Amino acid sequence: MGNTSLERRYTPLIILLLVAALVATIGLWATERAGSERGETQHIAAAGGDSYEWKMVTTWPKNFPGLGMAAENFSKLVEEMSDGRLTVHVYGAGELVPAMQVFDAVSQGVVDAGHGAAYYWKGKVPSAVFFTSIPFGLNAQEMNGWLHYGGGLELWQEAYAPYNLVPMAGGSTGVQMAGWFNKEINSIEDLKGLKMRIPGLAGEVFANAGGTAVTIPGGELYTSMQTGVIDALEWVGPYNDLAFGFHEVARYYYYPGWHEPGSILEFVVNKDSLEALPEDLQAIVVTASRAANQDMLDEYTARNNAALQSLIDEHGVQLRRLPDDVLLALWKGTQVAMEKLVADDPMAAKVYASYRKFYQGVRNYHHISEQAYINARDVAIGDDEL
Amino acid sequence: MGNTSLERRYTPLIILLLVAALVATIGLWATERAGSERGETQHIAAAGGDSYEWKMVTTWPKNFPGLGMAAENFSKLVEEMSDGRLTVHVYGAGELVPAMQVFDAVSQGVVDAGHGAAYYWKGKVPSAVFFTSIPFGLNAQEMNGWLHYGGGLELWQEAYAPYNLVPMAGGSTGVQMAGWFNKEINSIEDLKGLKMRIPGLAGEVFANAGGTAVTIPGGELYTSMQTGVIDALEWVGPYNDLAFGFHEVARYYYYPGWHEPGSILEFVVNKDSLEALPEDLQAIVVTASRAANQDMLDEYTARNNAALQSLIDEHGVQLRRLPDDVLLALWKGTQVAMEKLVADDPMAAKVYASYRKFYQGVRNYHHISEQAYINARDVAIGDDEL
Repeated sequence: MGNTSLERRYTPLIILLLVAALVATIGLWATERAGSERGETQHIAAAGGDSYEWKMVTTWPKNFPGLGMAAENFSKLVEEMSDGRLTVHVYGAGELVPAMQVFDAVSQGVVDAGHGAAYYWKGKVPSAVFFTSIPFGLNAQEMNGWLHYGGGLELWQEAYAPYNLVPMAGGSTGVQMAGWFNKEINSIEDLKGLKMRIPGLAGEVFANAGGTAVTIPGGELYTSMQTGVIDALEWVGPYNDLAFGFHEVARYYYYPGWHEPGSILEFVVNKDSLEALPEDLQAIVVTASRAANQDMLDEYTARNNAALQSLIDEHGVQLRRLPDDVLLALWKGTQVAMEKLVADDPMAAKVYASYRKFYQGVRNYHHISEQAYINARDVAIGDDEL
Repeated sequence: MGNTSLERRYTPLIILLLVAALVATIGLWATERAGSERGETQHIAAAGGDSYEWKMVTTWPKNFPGLGMAAENFSKLVEEMSDGRLTVHVYGAGELVPAMQVFDAVSQGVVDAGHGAAYYWKGKVPSAVFFTSIPFGLNAQEMNGWLHYGGGLELWQEAYAPYNLVPMAGGSTGVQMAGWFNKEINSIEDLKGLKMRIPGLAGEVFANAGGTAVTIPGGELYTSMQTGVIDALEWVGPYNDLAFGFHEVARYYYYPGWHEPGSILEFVVNKDSLEALPEDLQAIVVTASRAANQDMLDEYTARNNAALQSLIDEHGVQLRRLPDDVLLALWKGTQVAMEKLVADDPMAAKVYASYRKFYQGVRNYHHISEQAYINARDVAIGDDEL
């Protein structure tokens, strides 16, 4: 994202998932396609009330841990609450459409709904990055506040309206880690020539700060790190990183995360599909997405904590902190990237204005509340246990 | 809470709300009672499917900002999603039962459901404090992680099962402020003799740390502070505090909050009422509560931020930080109070063990994630604007 290369618009996470999904599901795909033709909403009139069948395509492999569970949760909640009147069939990336065609497929009514992340569609909708995460931006709690009580969701709806899409928050990973490094970073000098797999807007910022951002498909990351093709990579956080085994091929695990501080995933629903439902089922769709949205952050909060303990206790991972001058350089790089982002797109500028206003207020508030508390807890407790 | 005086078990917040509700709703109460007799679930068989009417009593005045909105949101979501097959009538404190009888009324099936906070029932269920908030404990994000993916909710259900109650998370205020003070606190010496309105477990801790905890009904707080009857008070946070006008009678607004770092409110449902519903309506009840749970934190995050700006810019409120030695003394006082709390109650000890294990893990994780990020943001951005 943030440059003109098509490949750069695809985050490596997505590329890995796409590859994995394509390989694993080619048989399933063929089977599904035989029964699906075009994915128009199935609408069956029945004695107990009309019933509906939806197809939801996602940018993740089927049942992918964490990220992929929001769609499964959504489907389960909708089915239970509607007593089966609305069934949502969830498809992994590549089963019906490739990951990077989720937006278009839902927009065009090929399918009814999708799950992914808004910043994947930045090429079409430059303002979309604000609805996922931006470097040094809002964390998960702050994003949810902005979206649901700060005007963010209304702007998101406005940005997607030309595409006949209704967006909803679809979960959060919380703060993502700065990533895995094979070189120790002691100052900004150590970024020079450092080849890091870091995609999209963050990659642009990393390059602005003096590093070399490269794009490598997720499936090749482990080997690339092992063979020295890259010096560093970022992924998600302990829960997902542990599963990929990056601790086996990388020397240090770096923090703090800076590039995706509270990534919000998204549900998108085709407006016609949504409006074809009776009002109770529409309400069920909106509320199921809201519940699935919180559920993902709850899961990541619990599982990241357990995975970090495993990384440290069982795998001897070495944690390192990014030095202040590196953080400062990344911040300067962010300012340059943001100016570029909003310069040519009035909607991006409009969303940025709303985001900034909320950001400044909530940052001030969290200086004396969440942030002040979580730091005070350390002052008071130190190495004691609760 | 935390001592044997009945009055101490009522937080002043509740007392204020109770007084307000009683005065304001005495007429409504009479009217409602005439139509309600006992509040058993109304179950009406109809052509389009059976329909149900529930009564939900709350510990807040009707439509109380923030805290009182979870019940209203829940009712609205349930009504919309069920197409009116389940209607939930929400009653403010004192309209059907006094605030402090919500637990018993739902337990006994006088009404179907309630909204309040688990720690109000500590006299009956000592472990209940862990399901709301404890001093220096989990913040809102961490509480939601523990409840929904760390075994917390299952323990809560176990603790309430003997009362025929099903509990669910019912919103969060986020970190509550340390409160309003008329004396500057520069060291632990300044706590000596300081008369602070601070109820419950936190009051016990405050006394352990050398202060004088007093209990005063919420409705008298403004005048008590104005006339010097008390030197300090705690309430909720900027959004609710601004509305009460404490900035008019108190010199300093103190942080960090330490006593209620992520208070979770609760929905309680009578088990028989829940099981009398068909499965789809049961799913609607559970999911509506989950959505309302997140909604409250989103609202507080946005409105606290706006209210703090007003307090500072328009009312010239002076923010002060509690010194480290005071935080340390409060922590020592917390340890004493916790030992006392779990000593005599096996269930409290069991819940504490689960809470501690999650706490230690998530605190370590947040040292390198949420906490590391929110501090790094300041290092990088400083006084710049996003």
